[in-house]
Amino acid sequence: MTLFSPQAGPEAPAAVTPDPTVRVRLLVAYLGAGFHGFALQPGQRTVAGVLVSALERHLRHTVELVCAGRTDAGVHAWGQVVSFDARHDVDLDRLARSVNRSTSPAVVVRAAARAAPDFDARRSATGRRYRYTVLNTPTADPFRASTAWHVAAPLDVAAMRLGCDPLIGEHDFSSFCRRPDPEASLVRVVRDARWVDEGGGVLRFEVEASSFCHQMVRSVVGTLVDVGAGKVRAGEVSGILRARTRAAARTLAPPHGLCLWEVGYEPAEGWPG
Amino acid sequence: MTLFSPQAGPEAPAAVTPDPTVRVRLLVAYLGAGFHGFALQPGQRTVAGVLVSALERHLRHTVELVCAGRTDAGVHAWGQVVSFDARHDVDLDRLARSVNRSTSPAVVVRAAARAAPDFDARRSATGRRYRYTVLNTPTADPFRASTAWHVAAPLDVAAMRLGCDPLIGEHDFSSFCRRPDPEASLVRVVRDARWVDEGGGVLRFEVEASSFCHQMVRSVVGTLVDVGAGKVRAGEVSGILRARTRAAARTLAPPHGLCLWEVGYEPAEGWPG
Repeated sequence: MTLFSPQAGPEAPAAVTPDPTVRVRLLVAYLGAGFHGFALQPGQRTVAGVLVSALERHLRHTVELVCAGRTDAGVHAWGQVVSFDARHDVDLDRLARSVNRSTSPAVVVRAAARAAPDFDARRSATGRRYRYTVLNTPTADPFRASTAWHVAAPLDVAAMRLGCDPLIGEHDFSSFCRRPDPEASLVRVVRDARWVDEGGGVLRFEVEASSFCHQMVRSVVGTLVDVGAGKVRAGEVSGILRARTRAAARTLAPPHGLCLWEVGYEPAEGWPG
Repeated sequence: MTLFSPQAGPEAPAAVTPDPTVRVRLLVAYLGAGFHGFALQPGQRTVAGVLVSALERHLRHTVELVCAGRTDAGVHAWGQVVSFDARHDVDLDRLARSVNRSTSPAVVVRAAARAAPDFDARRSATGRRYRYTVLNTPTADPFRASTAWHVAAPLDVAAMRLGCDPLIGEHDFSSFCRRPDPEASLVRVVRDARWVDEGGGVLRFEVEASSFCHQMVRSVVGTLVDVGAGKVRAGEVSGILRARTRAAARTLAPPHGLCLWEVGYEPAEGWPG
């Protein structure tokens, strides 16, 4: 019996990643509620913790997971992408089914594919798209409570749209980001930022950038909702951006309205979209 | 200080319903998860329990709640209707806001209105419409996990539609109902029963009847999904209905796909729709 034989019992110890290996990418969806965010944290239920444990149980070797966007506690994902190494003869359909049997519906593997040996879910990404949903109705909606920020005060969507304009392009987003490392650059390129009025009070913020810094989308949404509520003028957004200090943007939108929608890569065979 | 003065402290004892009174109707939405159904049960968190306690706290008198449809544990409602008596000078906008402050977003009062003195949420209802959502995709969807039944096996929607036909009209629905009282009639009039294909694997069952007996929609959906999966032929549904025994319909769809969508009444002033 080899170390990685599927006949090995559940008590078989996890081994290091075998050689030769193949790089695997997964498309993953999850609801943020019930998780302390994506990243592994000892003693906490995290998305990476649940995924790694299901992957290791199936693969019988340790897994080093890389993800495209480390979502915070409460933040959802429809199009999270992760990569890791598995042994070269892994059956990806079986792997996806096996993981889904143990993690679904909290965490769902939507697709699995072999990737180029140098593919890295984080570093190979050419862009990320987030969606933030605001429910702007006098009363809340139980069916949207876990995925939309309920704002009861009427919002001026036209003003919120004006407030988006200064954000497009390459800027230092220090005003809208939590800075974990004082040396890190917070310059980012925002390619798209707009509000879609879905009707029925549902306002969806779509934003795409090369990458985002920590809490950037929630901070931008908090400021734009302040614009919609008349607490900040649309013309002030540009000044808040130029201030380059976190103190300038006062409102942080709650995490449960945010969803990592899609991660962009160079087109690849066997990958959806 | 009178017994019903708004100045009475929170420690004021609940009094019986005052005289003169007004009949009040509320339109209520809730997500079934987290509740042991609608009806009051000692020691259990129920929708009626949460509502009555919020109403009594605001009104300072006891409330006898009547509802249009007693939903089971796990079943949702978008358009549940309840009625009760309050003192004649009750401010319904304040009442709705006060209840929503304590029950939202788990339970939301969508509308509140005065009703005719003989209005009864259950007995005055002329019809009920339920929706049942099936997600027919190979993998589950975390965002629909609490409101749709995930069925991975491919379903034949055309066959499921054929299976609806024998259900329309006045029938004894004993095969599809839990019979709590052996003497009770299980004859019901089904006015509409159809599958709407929303795309993306979302199949919505719409059913309207004068009233429903216990577990009727879930039992009908279970049988129609058996038809879609090829376990039961569409032509057999008529025989299952005529058998008038619960043993004939084998599959009960889970509660979380079901939602009490709308309750019909004679048109009334100050009421939405």
